[in-house]
Order: sequence, then C-alpha cells, then structure tokens
Amino acid sequence: MSAYDDLMAFQRDTEALGQVAGRLSWDQETMMPDGAAPQRAEEVAAMESVLHARRTDARIGEWLASIDDAQLDDVGRANTRLIRRSFERNAKVPADLAKKLASASSTAQRKWVEARANEDVAGFLPVLSEMIVLKREEAAALADGGNAYDALLDDYEPHTSGDEVATIFDAMRPRLVALRDKVMGGAQPAPLDHEFDAQKQMRLARKTAKLFGYDMSHGRLDKAVHPFSSGSGLDVRVTTRTSPRDPFNCIYSTIHEVGHGSYEQNIDADYLLTPLGQGASLGVHESQSRIYENQLGRSRAFTGFLFGQMKDAFGDFGVADEDTFYKTVNRMNKGFIRTEADEVQYNLHIMLRFDLERDVIMGKLEARDLEEAWNTRFEADFGYAVEAPSNGLLQDVHWSCGLWGYFPTYSLGNVYAGCLNEAMRAALPELNTDLAKGDLSAATGWLKDNVQRHGGLMKPRDVIEQASGMAPSEAPLLNYLEGKFGSF
Amino acid sequence: MSAYDDLMAFQRDTEALGQVAGRLSWDQETMMPDGAAPQRAEEVAAMESVLHARRTDARIGEWLASIDDAQLDDVGRANTRLIRRSFERNAKVPADLAKKLASASSTAQRKWVEARANEDVAGFLPVLSEMIVLKREEAAALADGGNAYDALLDDYEPHTSGDEVATIFDAMRPRLVALRDKVMGGAQPAPLDHEFDAQKQMRLARKTAKLFGYDMSHGRLDKAVHPFSSGSGLDVRVTTRTSPRDPFNCIYSTIHEVGHGSYEQNIDADYLLTPLGQGASLGVHESQSRIYENQLGRSRAFTGFLFGQMKDAFGDFGVADEDTFYKTVNRMNKGFIRTEADEVQYNLHIMLRFDLERDVIMGKLEARDLEEAWNTRFEADFGYAVEAPSNGLLQDVHWSCGLWGYFPTYSLGNVYAGCLNEAMRAALPELNTDLAKGDLSAATGWLKDNVQRHGGLMKPRDVIEQASGMAPSEAPLLNYLEGKFGSF
Repeated sequence: MSAYDDLMAFQRDTEALGQVAGRLSWDQETMMPDGAAPQRAEEVAAMESVLHARRTDARIGEWLASIDDAQLDDVGRANTRLIRRSFERNAKVPADLAKKLASASSTAQRKWVEARANEDVAGFLPVLSEMIVLKREEAAALADGGNAYDALLDDYEPHTSGDEVATIFDAMRPRLVALRDKVMGGAQPAPLDHEFDAQKQMRLARKTAKLFGYDMSHGRLDKAVHPFSSGSGLDVRVTTRTSPRDPFNCIYSTIHEVGHGSYEQNIDADYLLTPLGQGASLGVHESQSRIYENQLGRSRAFTGFLFGQMKDAFGDFGVADEDTFYKTVNRMNKGFIRTEADEVQYNLHIMLRFDLERDVIMGKLEARDLEEAWNTRFEADFGYAVEAPSNGLLQDVHWSCGLWGYFPTYSLGNVYAGCLNEAMRAALPELNTDLAKGDLSAATGWLKDNVQRHGGLMKPRDVIEQASGMAPSEAPLLNYLEGKFGSF
Repeated sequence: MSAYDDLMAFQRDTEALGQVAGRLSWDQETMMPDGAAPQRAEEVAAMESVLHARRTDARIGEWLASIDDAQLDDVGRANTRLIRRSFERNAKVPADLAKKLASASSTAQRKWVEARANEDVAGFLPVLSEMIVLKREEAAALADGGNAYDALLDDYEPHTSGDEVATIFDAMRPRLVALRDKVMGGAQPAPLDHEFDAQKQMRLARKTAKLFGYDMSHGRLDKAVHPFSSGSGLDVRVTTRTSPRDPFNCIYSTIHEVGHGSYEQNIDADYLLTPLGQGASLGVHESQSRIYENQLGRSRAFTGFLFGQMKDAFGDFGVADEDTFYKTVNRMNKGFIRTEADEVQYNLHIMLRFDLERDVIMGKLEARDLEEAWNTRFEADFGYAVEAPSNGLLQDVHWSCGLWGYFPTYSLGNVYAGCLNEAMRAALPELNTDLAKGDLSAATGWLKDNVQRHGGLMKPRDVIEQASGMAPSEAPLLNYLEGKFGSF
C-alpha cells in the first residue's frame, strides 16, 4: 500500500464515524426521548473525542509528507487538498483553546434561549463577550499573521476572503433596499387565513420532496423544531415542521432541505466516504437549497402547479387563483426575523450580520456596542426600528455558539443560485412549461450534472464558475429579484 | 487520580460509545432507509473497530494490575470484576480469529435468509460448518484447558456451567413433555378470527407499555420486523410488530420487550455508563421479560383486564368472556417455531438446541448430522415430525451467526422467572386483585427493588438467589406451569 492508500483507508473510517456522529445529531432532533439528554451529551462528547483524535493523528502528517501530489489524478489531489486543510487547521488551534471553545459553545445554547425569552441583553453579554474573546484568539491562531476574519470564514467557505464577500454584498445592498422600498410601497396580497391539517401538510411535503428528486430509499422526511438536512452518501435525512396556519413553512422548509439533501444524495458514488463525498462548501450547499426553494419552488410556473396540489389536499383555502397564490407565496413582510424573511429582505439580514461580525473579529466593535450597532443598521436598511432584543441581537444563536464567518455563506448561496439559475434557464428553455406541470426532472437533472455530482472535487467558486460559465457575481441574482419582485 | 479512577474514566467513554453503537443498530431496524445498508455496514465496522481498540487497550491491563481490590467497596469490586472479565476474554481470542468470526457472521445472515427461503439445508451446511470450526477454535482459546462449551456459555451467562444447566433442563424435560401431552389431549379454544387495525394495536401497545411501568421520557416504542430492546440508562428503546389477525403478537412482544427495557431503565442511576449500568446477564434479562410477559401478562387476573381493553379498542372480536379469552391467550399450538411457542413448549425448543449445540462444541456432533439429530429429537419431544427444514434446523439464525451458548439463557430466564414469581406472589398477596384492575405497580416495584436496580452488581445466580430467597431451580417454574396449564 502506498502512503496515499494508507491515508485514504484511515480517512474512510473517519468519514464513516463522522456519519455516525451526524446521525446521532439527527436522532437528537427527531427521535430522542427528552429524558435522555444528559446521557446523550456524554455520548456526543465521546464521539467528538474519537473524531478529534483521528483528525489530529500524527500519522496523517506523515502520510501527507510522503505523498507526491504530482503522481495523483484530480480526485487524488482534491482528496489530499481537503485532508491537508483539515489537518493543518486542527494543528493550528491549541488543544486548550479548542476545549474552551467547545465548553463555551455547549453552555451558550441554553443561555441564549433564556436570554431571548427574557429579552435580557445585559444577561447575555457575558456569554457573547467570552465567545468573542475566544474566537478572536482562534482567528489569530488560524490566520497565522493573515486576516483574522478570513481565517474564520475559511472554515465554512474555503478559498474566499471577507473582501471578496464585501465587494459583492456592498454592490447588492443599495439595490435591495430600493427594491424593498418599492415593493413595500405597493399593494400586498392578504396573508392566508385558514387552518391546515398537519398530517395533510406532511403528506404534501413528502409528495413534493419526491417531485424535487429526493430519493426516499436513501433518505427520510421527519419533523423537527428547526428543519435541517443530515448525512451524506447513501443515508441523507431531511426534516421539516408544520404550523397549522402557515403551510408554506412546511412546504418550503421541505423543498429547501431537499435541496441540501439532494446535493448530498447526488454526489458521484465513487466519492462515498471520502472527503469528496460531501458538498463543496456551505455557500455552494445553500445555492442548491435556495435554487430549489426560490428560483424553482417560488416561481410563477411551479406555484401554479402547487396551487392545484394544495386545493386537492386542503380544499378551498381562500385564495382565488394562481396569480394571487403566487403573490401570497412571495408576500413581503415588514418583519424582523431572518428565518421568516422573503427572498429580498433575507439578504439584507445577512449583510447586517456580516458587516457587524467582521468588525467584531477585526477588533473594531465590542460586544457591549453590538446591540446599538445592530439597531442602527436595521433601521437604515429596513426603514423601521427594532422594538425588542428578541427581534434584534438575540434572534440568532449563531454568534453565542461560536459560528463566526458562517452567516455570509447564506447570501453567498443566494448569489451562487442567481448565477446557476441564469445558466440553467438558458440551457432549459422549456423549463417553465415543465414546472407548471410539476415536472422538476430537467432542472434537478441539470443541477445534478453541473453541480451536485462533483461533491468536493473543486473549490467552491470553481464549482459555480464551471457550472454557470461565469465568475460568481451579484448581477444575476439582482436581475432575477428585480425582475420578479419589480412586477408585483 | 488513582488507577481505579483512571480506569473508570476510560471505561465511561467506552460505555458511552457502546451506547452509540447500540443506537445505530436500533436505527438500522427501525428508521434506516433501505438503500443505506452498504454505507451502514462500513459505519458499524468503524464503530466496532473503535470499540475493540478501547476494550483491548493495554492501559486497561496496567490499571487493573495496580488496583488493590481490597481497597474498593462492593461497587468498585464489581466494576473491576466486569472490566477484568471483558479484558481477559478479549485478550484470549487471537485478533485473526476474531476477524474471521466477524466476517463469517456478517455473511451468514444473508445466506441463512436465502437457505431458509429455499429449504436448502445442503446449501447452508458449508456456512454452518465454517462457523462451527471457528467457534470450536474460539472455545478452545477461551477455555484455556477448561470446558469448551462453558467458555462460550460464559459470554452470555457468566459463572454458570453447561453441567448446571443440563441438570436443570434434564429435570424439566419429562414433566414438560407430559404436560404438553396432557394439554394437547384436551379441548383447545378456537384461535382468534377477526381483523385488528394496526394503529389501534399500537395505541393499545403503548398504553400497555406504560401500565407495565415503561418510562416513555427515557424510551420509545416503535415497530420492527423482529422486536427487540436496545440501550441502557437514560435512553432505552423497545420495539414491537403488528399482524392484522394476531394482536397478541403486538401486545405480548411489547410486554416482553418492556420487561427488558424496564430492567435497563430501573438500574440505579449511580451506575449510569459504568459496567454495572446494564443487566446482569442474558438469563437474568430474560427472567424480567418473561415474568412481565407470562407470569404477569398472561395471568388469569391480567388477561381479565386486557379483555376489557381489547373490547374497548376493537369492539366485539368474537371472544365471549374473560375465561375464554384467558384460554385463547394461552392457547397451545401444534407448531414448529420456537418464537411462536407457548410457555410450555418454548422450553422444549430451547432444550433441544442446548443439547445439540453442546454436543457440537464438544466435538460429539458434526454439522452434516445436525438435521437428523434435530428431527429425531423434535419428534421425541413434540410427538410429530418436522416436515420442512425452515421449521427445523433452518428456523433460527443464531448458530450461523456465531451465537453458540446463547440459547440456554432463554430457558434459564424462564427458570429464574419461576423463582422470582414464587417469591413475588408470597410478598404481594393482593397481586391478583391489582392485576385484575390493570395495576402493575406493586409487581414492577417489587422487581425493581429486588432485581432491576442492582444492574450488574452481583453475579447472575446471586441476583436471583437474593431476590427470591432460594437457589435457582426448575421446581417453581414447573409447579407454576403445571398449575396453570393443568387446569385447562
């Protein structure tokens, strides 16, 4: 066996154990009895400790040192690139700091829930401040003299800098604010006013998941408080939720998670349990979930089909026709909450967080000033003031749990989806005819062939560039959004 | 930290990882999508490899060597006894043999399914022969000059010899054969002739599980092809199945597995994630599942209550009254299949396997002669001939998967349940009044206090002896069976 074969055999077991750990999380959110939580915490910690030991195993360094990349094919080079990245990253963070981060993160979740329920920013600031100190320290260790924020961003969106993201986001912001102003100034459709049976919602969700190509023989659809997708390869599970008065929550959470899940299901079978057997980055992942959910799922053509499906499932639910239904699905709210925002305002939420978190990591903003900075920026972009911390600084768990550099991947995903949508529409001129019949096969087939099957083979931006035939930029997304929402 | 503390900290992570591996099995039987099987096999193998490395870690030997048992309390001594047992056992089996056994076992399951479907004994014999060679080799390694069969039995029922089991079984056999003859010679109640809705069966099963004290906040009840219980401590899950024309399958599988699950749930909380945090042996485990299922669940008093529950759930299902229902629940079949047998014939099935498997391991019987030996013995004990291999040698997967020394624990469990039942009835004179009202709390409370809470603290026979106040013997079980079935 060559060093490369040894490395890949070792890595394969690590990947398999990573899948086990991931399934344990899935279980925790879907199946675990409530009283099992304390034991589960020990189980998770034991698995993490096994995985950490494997990921920092000194033999990985030795194998990597004796592999000559020039002797490898593209797949081999991509594998060693990803393993080297992960190994070097883990080596840079002192074990003591990693432990402190894990411990701070595990207590933060509970404290955040409490603080949000009590609108208690002051009580939350110590948690946030401690995490900021630790993340700055981690960023400095990872950056090794380079840019601290980029070092964190690299965990979620490799080979992308904060400056590149800022260039894109800064170009988007004024046009999105203007678009929001325009739509909010016009007439809005009435919200749904009907009770939707939960079992029927789940039945429709299951049917819709299959329409979007999700393979139930390698997956499941269950309920969870916060929908997510979990797993890679032959076992990729998605979740959704039901709300009696808002069936769109169930349907579009399903389509979104099916985007993530299908990406994982559709990766080349040769990459199973290798570093290439997972999506290329969070941004590319989000491009798939978003294009499924929005450019396809919230299109005029597909909502026409969905309107019929919903009437079949629920009877008359008070929406007169396809056009009204389309506008209801895409209704813009004067809201505060990121996860409930429409396609336009969602990006404004993300940009706010990106600018603030970058300033924090770069030492330009402190925890105590975050709330004011948040509220000032919110009013500037949205046109109205945050009236409660749970609608502002306390609305997301991310920062308190140590996820810094994570937020921008959400909007990067939208930007990537814009590029892919433009290319896909050009390649599939009959797509709207298909969508109006509920036939997603051409669209999902195009995404599989051009994006999904490659898994982690290419760098994230390269995935988008080779699929869409253009360097990623904000223009296609903005054109799409202005075209769609400008017509309302 | 002392060597004992170091050992226990290391062991705690191993126990936690063992729970993760167990939950992976649960998932496989209940939730896993069909297409995930090949990936799951790699995940399971990776977990097993992690666990094997921990269980044979040389540090365990060093810690054990530097612990002075005299300095420990009862709990400490029980912990080191169990860890030493497992460590020494693993050290005795050469790694190469362990690998061959694991590989033979993993292919046997599929080949057994095929052979059984095709009534193909000849095609199955090579699989069985290979396993027998390996098990004899393993037994010799484990026995280290001692009795080969005892060495295998010790994996499932520690501190018990084949001779001790044979003494008990040999005393049972003639009385059970005579009892079977007598009952089969009398009038039998008609079998159920009704269709029972699967959802209603599951609802009744859930209600019954709670009646028997199963704690849903630390467990779940799901469906599986072959019912089982899984997990220890704060997360103990049970399964059952439904059959449209046989609701007793669902109800009594539930009660049986709830017996196993409650045992695990009721172990002293101090033993969580330690070697004491699991049942004492398979035999003691089976004593709990059997006493829940049979001495309690199939009693005249409880079936009187269950009859009312079933009428509430299913309406009139064609059984006239409580007495008829009691006889229907305990109906004796002229069957061939162990898992479908009544309380009397079940033990005859087990004794047949015990005698044969002991002869095989001791080198007195070869694979090629097993079918004839089985059929001869079956006709002698049951009074009619096996007419198809799927009803004979091919009916159980155990031997082909390497489970030799496992079968007798089923009947040992019945013997233990007999002892416990006698003592429990003496301690709880009003028990039948409770059972007739569906109140199981006194019975399950007695079992918790006297058996379950101790977990692995005592040796198996000691558990039964201190709980029942007598050395385990077949007499109480036989008296109970003759009293119950003799009255039919």
